[in-house]
Amino acid sequence: MLYSVVWKNNSVLLIDQTRLPNEYAVVEIHRSEDMAEAIRTMIVRGAPAIGVAAAYGMYLGAREIETSKREEFLQQLEKVAQLLRSTRPTAVNLFWAIGRMMQTAYETLGTIAEIQQTLLETAQTINAEDIQTCQAIGDHGLAALPKTPEKLTILTHCNTGALATAGYGTALGVVRSAWREGRLTRVFADETRPRLQGAKLTAWECVQEGIPVTVITDSMAAHCMKQGLIDAVIVGADRIAANGDTANKIGTYSLAIVAQKHNIPFFVAAPVSTIDFTLASGSLIPIEERHPSEIYQIGDTLLTPSGVEFYNPAFDVTPAELITAIITENGAFAPGDLIKAQKNSVL
Amino acid sequence: MLYSVVWKNNSVLLIDQTRLPNEYAVVEIHRSEDMAEAIRTMIVRGAPAIGVAAAYGMYLGAREIETSKREEFLQQLEKVAQLLRSTRPTAVNLFWAIGRMMQTAYETLGTIAEIQQTLLETAQTINAEDIQTCQAIGDHGLAALPKTPEKLTILTHCNTGALATAGYGTALGVVRSAWREGRLTRVFADETRPRLQGAKLTAWECVQEGIPVTVITDSMAAHCMKQGLIDAVIVGADRIAANGDTANKIGTYSLAIVAQKHNIPFFVAAPVSTIDFTLASGSLIPIEERHPSEIYQIGDTLLTPSGVEFYNPAFDVTPAELITAIITENGAFAPGDLIKAQKNSVL
Repeated sequence: MLYSVVWKNNSVLLIDQTRLPNEYAVVEIHRSEDMAEAIRTMIVRGAPAIGVAAAYGMYLGAREIETSKREEFLQQLEKVAQLLRSTRPTAVNLFWAIGRMMQTAYETLGTIAEIQQTLLETAQTINAEDIQTCQAIGDHGLAALPKTPEKLTILTHCNTGALATAGYGTALGVVRSAWREGRLTRVFADETRPRLQGAKLTAWECVQEGIPVTVITDSMAAHCMKQGLIDAVIVGADRIAANGDTANKIGTYSLAIVAQKHNIPFFVAAPVSTIDFTLASGSLIPIEERHPSEIYQIGDTLLTPSGVEFYNPAFDVTPAELITAIITENGAFAPGDLIKAQKNSVL
Repeated sequence: MLYSVVWKNNSVLLIDQTRLPNEYAVVEIHRSEDMAEAIRTMIVRGAPAIGVAAAYGMYLGAREIETSKREEFLQQLEKVAQLLRSTRPTAVNLFWAIGRMMQTAYETLGTIAEIQQTLLETAQTINAEDIQTCQAIGDHGLAALPKTPEKLTILTHCNTGALATAGYGTALGVVRSAWREGRLTRVFADETRPRLQGAKLTAWECVQEGIPVTVITDSMAAHCMKQGLIDAVIVGADRIAANGDTANKIGTYSLAIVAQKHNIPFFVAAPVSTIDFTLASGSLIPIEERHPSEIYQIGDTLLTPSGVEFYNPAFDVTPAELITAIITENGAFAPGDLIKAQKNSVL
């Protein structure tokens, strides 16, 4: 098993995802500022993984606080939370994990040392839960997949695998489960411009596991569907609004439209912590814009002439009506049923 | 004015489009084999431009033939035609230009030297006609554009400008005309993976001409449309079937689907020579597959791990029902009206 975030020897080990697939390097993080920078620069990325990384980041910040006064400790911990929250705006798992860590701090009685210890344990719990969650998503996803053909070719976008989570993956976790159950012929991986997480990370994970993978450019997906090459699409999510509208990596919206045009089922796989019930619809989800160099530079190569402008939204919102089902650790739901499921305590 | 193909001092000058935008270099072509290689490796690309280049290639081949016997000359010229036809399968302009050159050879009486001279003149005529054709496409395109808003933001895919033609451009020619008439706010250019003709060539042409241009990844187009940033889409064509189905750069089909979803008009701009009335529908158009290195390598950077497979279709087919109008030098036509227009000798 591959783990993107590991707690070891009093520090956090991150696989440096900016160097894959050409180099496998592990970065040791000791301080909350370094964790914030690792999240911002996408050394660690993927909504669930940045949640876990941020939880550890909260502990790293907590252990740096030198005070014996509870109030002062909590005030300084709020600043750590603020720093970590400022790294990336779209994925809600970040805010969810930081919120859970802050709540733990507020609710834990005892000495500062005891609170710090509880924070570490909570981060480790979040970490362990995420792996279990992914495996449950894999099971529910397997059950939700089309029954025919027996062996499926699944298209995915971006990276939603072990690298994007604490382990196993969300959408790619479903792919893993399908592969293990003999229900998968091949994965088609959108390269996922601008940062190429599909070409670099999803392809790498599939090769590691022996899953046959074909990399295409994002613009080829519709053509592949028309050729009958694709049986289902599965993507992850960075934030899901209460009505089922889903923010995910830029290009997901386009993919959902072309999947519907070809009557191909389109699944979103994500932990329940990705659902933001405070937002009525996807139009309220903040969309991060990143530096244009992600578009105009690859390695040392400049792709565009000077004098050009750029627009680089990192995410887009896929409306609920384009989504066949949202697969969570508690089961698969029609996107319009999220609120009802929450009221019935199923979510 | 910018010219991608120029006849000068008894040779053909090509702007090396594989080096732009970082380097402006001109390649001198003296022999038909070198022209075939230049077309194959995309030193010259764009359906109309490769038509013009192939016409000159036919002449270069013709002047190399050392015989005084007409039959032998024509036999050897057929071999030149065969070589040039083998370079790229999808764009019909290549076959059209070679056919016209062969027909000229068959129909010209006189000595071999006289036939050779007539072939040069025919290639120059094809060259000059293409420039006039593009300007007429620009005029008709301007008339076909939506009347509101007064100033439009137009999205385009790949490169269809002066570089892709003998001059001025097809879809980008319409953009040029709109800019000159004050009807254009800005161009959005899809970068157009895998070969990035949008980021490299369209962006470069726009900067040369002072047209404001925003480069996006192909996967961002749908999101931009949803944000209300796009008023119209204009693309070129490599081959149009009799029923209006249009083969164009990979990603065009996806773009047409997402444009329809947002009720944004979707125009194809191409010379009449791009229409292949011998093919009833787009499913009969041969689609070129190119080397996977176009996907996995940019500059010196390898994007994917080893062990991955690729699929690299260079074109896709957009069905007629997704196309608002096909803009030619003879006017704009609903895609379903091509056959009628041909019967009425309007096309």
